[in-house]
Amino acid sequence: MTPKPELTATLLFSCPDQKGLVSRISHFLFERNGNILDLDEHVVQEEKRFFLRICWDMKDFTLSPQATIEAFTPLAKEFSATWQIRFSNQRRRTAIFVSKHGHCLQELLWRHSLGEFDTEIVLIISNHPDLHPLAERYSIPYYVFPITPDTKVEQEKKELALLQQHNIDTIILARYMQVLSPQFVEKYPNQIINIHHSFLPAFVGSNPYKQAYERGVKIVGATSHYVTNELDEGPIIEQDIVRISHRDSLDDLIRKGRDLERLVLARAVRLHLEDRVLVYGNKTVVFE
Amino acid sequence: MTPKPELTATLLFSCPDQKGLVSRISHFLFERNGNILDLDEHVVQEEKRFFLRICWDMKDFTLSPQATIEAFTPLAKEFSATWQIRFSNQRRRTAIFVSKHGHCLQELLWRHSLGEFDTEIVLIISNHPDLHPLAERYSIPYYVFPITPDTKVEQEKKELALLQQHNIDTIILARYMQVLSPQFVEKYPNQIINIHHSFLPAFVGSNPYKQAYERGVKIVGATSHYVTNELDEGPIIEQDIVRISHRDSLDDLIRKGRDLERLVLARAVRLHLEDRVLVYGNKTVVFE
Amino acid sequence: MTPKPELTATLLFSCPDQKGLVSRISHFLFERNGNILDLDEHVVQEEKRFFLRICWDMKDFTLSPQATIEAFTPLAKEFSATWQIRFSNQRRRTAIFVSKHGHCLQELLWRHSLGEFDTEIVLIISNHPDLHPLAERYSIPYYVFPITPDTKVEQEKKELALLQQHNIDTIILARYMQVLSPQFVEKYPNQIINIHHSFLPAFVGSNPYKQAYERGVKIVGATSHYVTNELDEGPIIEQDIVRISHRDSLDDLIRKGRDLERLVLARAVRLHLEDRVLVYGNKTVVFE
Amino acid sequence: MTPKPELTATLLFSCPDQKGLVSRISHFLFERNGNILDLDEHVVQEEKRFFLRICWDMKDFTLSPQATIEAFTPLAKEFSATWQIRFSNQRRRTAIFVSKHGHCLQELLWRHSLGEFDTEIVLIISNHPDLHPLAERYSIPYYVFPITPDTKVEQEKKELALLQQHNIDTIILARYMQVLSPQFVEKYPNQIINIHHSFLPAFVGSNPYKQAYERGVKIVGATSHYVTNELDEGPIIEQDIVRISHRDSLDDLIRKGRDLERLVLARAVRLHLEDRVLVYGNKTVVFE
Repeated sequence: MTPKPELTATLLFSCPDQKGLVSRISHFLFERNGNILDLDEHVVQEEKRFFLRICWDMKDFTLSPQATIEAFTPLAKEFSATWQIRFSNQRRRTAIFVSKHGHCLQELLWRHSLGEFDTEIVLIISNHPDLHPLAERYSIPYYVFPITPDTKVEQEKKELALLQQHNIDTIILARYMQVLSPQFVEKYPNQIINIHHSFLPAFVGSNPYKQAYERGVKIVGATSHYVTNELDEGPIIEQDIVRISHRDSLDDLIRKGRDLERLVLARAVRLHLEDRVLVYGNKTVVFE
Repeated sequence: MTPKPELTATLLFSCPDQKGLVSRISHFLFERNGNILDLDEHVVQEEKRFFLRICWDMKDFTLSPQATIEAFTPLAKEFSATWQIRFSNQRRRTAIFVSKHGHCLQELLWRHSLGEFDTEIVLIISNHPDLHPLAERYSIPYYVFPITPDTKVEQEKKELALLQQHNIDTIILARYMQVLSPQFVEKYPNQIINIHHSFLPAFVGSNPYKQAYERGVKIVGATSHYVTNELDEGPIIEQDIVRISHRDSLDDLIRKGRDLERLVLARAVRLHLEDRVLVYGNKTVVFE
Repeated sequence: MTPKPELTATLLFSCPDQKGLVSRISHFLFERNGNILDLDEHVVQEEKRFFLRICWDMKDFTLSPQATIEAFTPLAKEFSATWQIRFSNQRRRTAIFVSKHGHCLQELLWRHSLGEFDTEIVLIISNHPDLHPLAERYSIPYYVFPITPDTKVEQEKKELALLQQHNIDTIILARYMQVLSPQFVEKYPNQIINIHHSFLPAFVGSNPYKQAYERGVKIVGATSHYVTNELDEGPIIEQDIVRISHRDSLDDLIRKGRDLERLVLARAVRLHLEDRVLVYGNKTVVFE
Repeated sequence: MTPKPELTATLLFSCPDQKGLVSRISHFLFERNGNILDLDEHVVQEEKRFFLRICWDMKDFTLSPQATIEAFTPLAKEFSATWQIRFSNQRRRTAIFVSKHGHCLQELLWRHSLGEFDTEIVLIISNHPDLHPLAERYSIPYYVFPITPDTKVEQEKKELALLQQHNIDTIILARYMQVLSPQFVEKYPNQIINIHHSFLPAFVGSNPYKQAYERGVKIVGATSHYVTNELDEGPIIEQDIVRISHRDSLDDLIRKGRDLERLVLARAVRLHLEDRVLVYGNKTVVFE
């Protein structure tokens, strides 16, 4: 196998479409001796908006990470772009929120232990103590913040303080059964990833398997999306489905859905951590 | 290959669950020298309701079709069953309703020509003349009933008269873009099969691909269901999906969806024509 | 939800097809006051062979388990049937064989802890010590039998002795990288379940992902089957696939395949443990 | 919707990987006022080979098509590239080969009539007269060249003459049941698209459904690939699968497979016609 490069950079970039964007940006890298490892671009025609992801090898690149960002800023400004460059040695710092269902948490921790996720999982927050043993098994600190309607505002403040103290930049809701307040969500725009156990926009809200069972659908789904202030309405990152039949009881739906939730959330998390997702409006461009 | 039996009978049967149902019914057939070719049963536990489909060979059966029904009636009454027995020489008589999109109609006519559907396709009704040439190619009579809000009641009456005159018992809405009135629907309970171009219950109503495109889903679907008076709310027979990405324009969704609609409708029609679908409440038991 | 019956019986039955089989068998149960919970039958037409699975509630049944088997034996003999009746309080006793890859083992143990598998997992056997900690986490005894070409015969004898001592009746090869000898396999006919990491019969043998990568396929698969003396040729229980593209490296195939192996093996194990699989020749009837 | 550009160009390009490739090529276009509509690149790491597809709008481009190719040639030479530029007004000229099964031909002709394929379908060649009526319906000339072992060499020569006379550049084998000779195949390298009715490399050769049925697989597939001199071994463009069960007879496999063949071949043809497929060795890069 080819050895992995030691240090890479990944640019996510979007701006109004115009001629010469690829040329200018790839030239910027070429001039500085950057070797492009991966490049994806897309133009949303209705909105004439350009999206780009470039990953390059920093070996032999003539600029340091810091200098790279400084050098790129004027170019990005010229194109009125929204952009970020992340270097592979800047690992994301992730917090996972859970309630009582452990399957998504276990899946994430197991995959992380195999090296599938390029992040540090710094801590786990829950409104229940139930999954503490699972967290311990993987030696991840586990904090319990019980939530009632009365204490919610207060508890969220404590959670935010904890997250800031640990420089968390990515939050995964792994079947966290609380709705986060707008004050919380606005602190992490497009950085909170949720798994909803239905094929959105079907079966928004609570008990989607029950809703699906009662409607008599022949397929159930799961959807991973960024959290916004509209419940289950945020930009969708990934979805998948599984067939069911009249033979499946509600319990069977829950069991089959469990497998789906695990896989869909894991895929979305991986796409996010590899900087493959760009959000525009309420939609995503996913460069797989 | 094994030769197909000349004459078969198919019983669809549902009743409150109780002990001895399979024994009594299979004994009924055994006594009369019937050879069971296929048997499926299911009990919906919450409702304690029993569903059965039995298909048997009429060769060597000691009763004629007419006598079979007479002999079975008291047994069915004893169990307070909803039931039907159809013999393979009683081909269903089908009408297809279309508007301007020809892909579903073409798929149905082509499959019919290959012998996939055990029915006579008696006639095609449309509110537009556009698909007349396609109907002609397969030598099926094509009737045009233009519909406006003002003429709808009148035209539906004419359509119903035509259907009755031709002893139609099955209606397929192959992208028919009109909503049938309750007066029409009640004449054909669980006999009108529709294809909706979304993964119901997501994207009810018009322009589902546009709705899907704007929501930014990663999967689109199609749903075939029996028509009831609630728009797109009838019992679902079959669903399927196809993955999409940000690269797919609205036109691509329509193109990919076209393939899905064809297949999902064809599968639902086949299931219905083979007497594999039992309706209860707003759900179906599909014995595949 | 409906409460689960306390004690149930499941009959798996196959014999040359003839009239009256369902009637005779269902009558046998009805006479003894058995309530059928689930019934599936199938006839393989080319071979005129009949397959049946019936599950019934033992509550109110007039015979004890022992007496049930005695009473059923003459009926089965009359039809020259191959059959078994298992009662829900006779839990299967399972051994899992592993080498160094832990993902399948972890999946099985986790699902077992959730109650998805109706068996006791009695012990784990490996030719390597690597997965001992995982076994310990679930408190399952873990035995290491290192295998070399020279010691294989000897070691298999010890393994067999251990299995017999613990009354093992089901063996799962969860990525066990050794080929079992014919002497071993014949002790457990259709009781050893393997997972092969390809879409059989494509890519038999070792390194199937490498074979798939080099062939340039657009889909990879996994296959769970019963072990016979022909390598990767046993009766297939379950298969599934995942799409890949030119973007996927061999490492990506291995990663994506890992998810597939876990799910396919888990489904096959569940089907086997619920007595849903009947083998004939080199094929299976799977009553889902 | 955004209006489609009047004239576009598509470059397919591959060469040994090196720094600056994207920059140099995108700069070439930018200098000449080309607006990039779509760009995809990929590097096969093991072979250090670079693959690129760029599609750009020729409106405002400063060079004519002819001049574009002249200007690009030195650049391509410098990189030792394999390449082609095709302009959207140079429609491919396609011949379809068939035997007696009409489903793939009908699918292709129907999709072509909807505008899904950017090609002229110039003629149809068959070794049997059966599908002449279908060809007539779409007004495509249909030529019959009966093939026997004795006449094969002779007939292929006549076919080749016909193809050359009509400037055919793309050949689709839509269930053509003859193996083309090496002399034939070498005239159209990576320009002959075949559909094989199995999940290659499983079930090479004749009667794959029968092979699949006898092996007892739970999934059947279809594979579209470029034809080479190794039977069913050419570079794979597209594959897909459908689930089957013990309930499916060989006839059912053939019926379900028919749907699959149609879709898989249609997808592969579309990918080829849109210049989305690059071949290297026996594999493909498919820029979807």
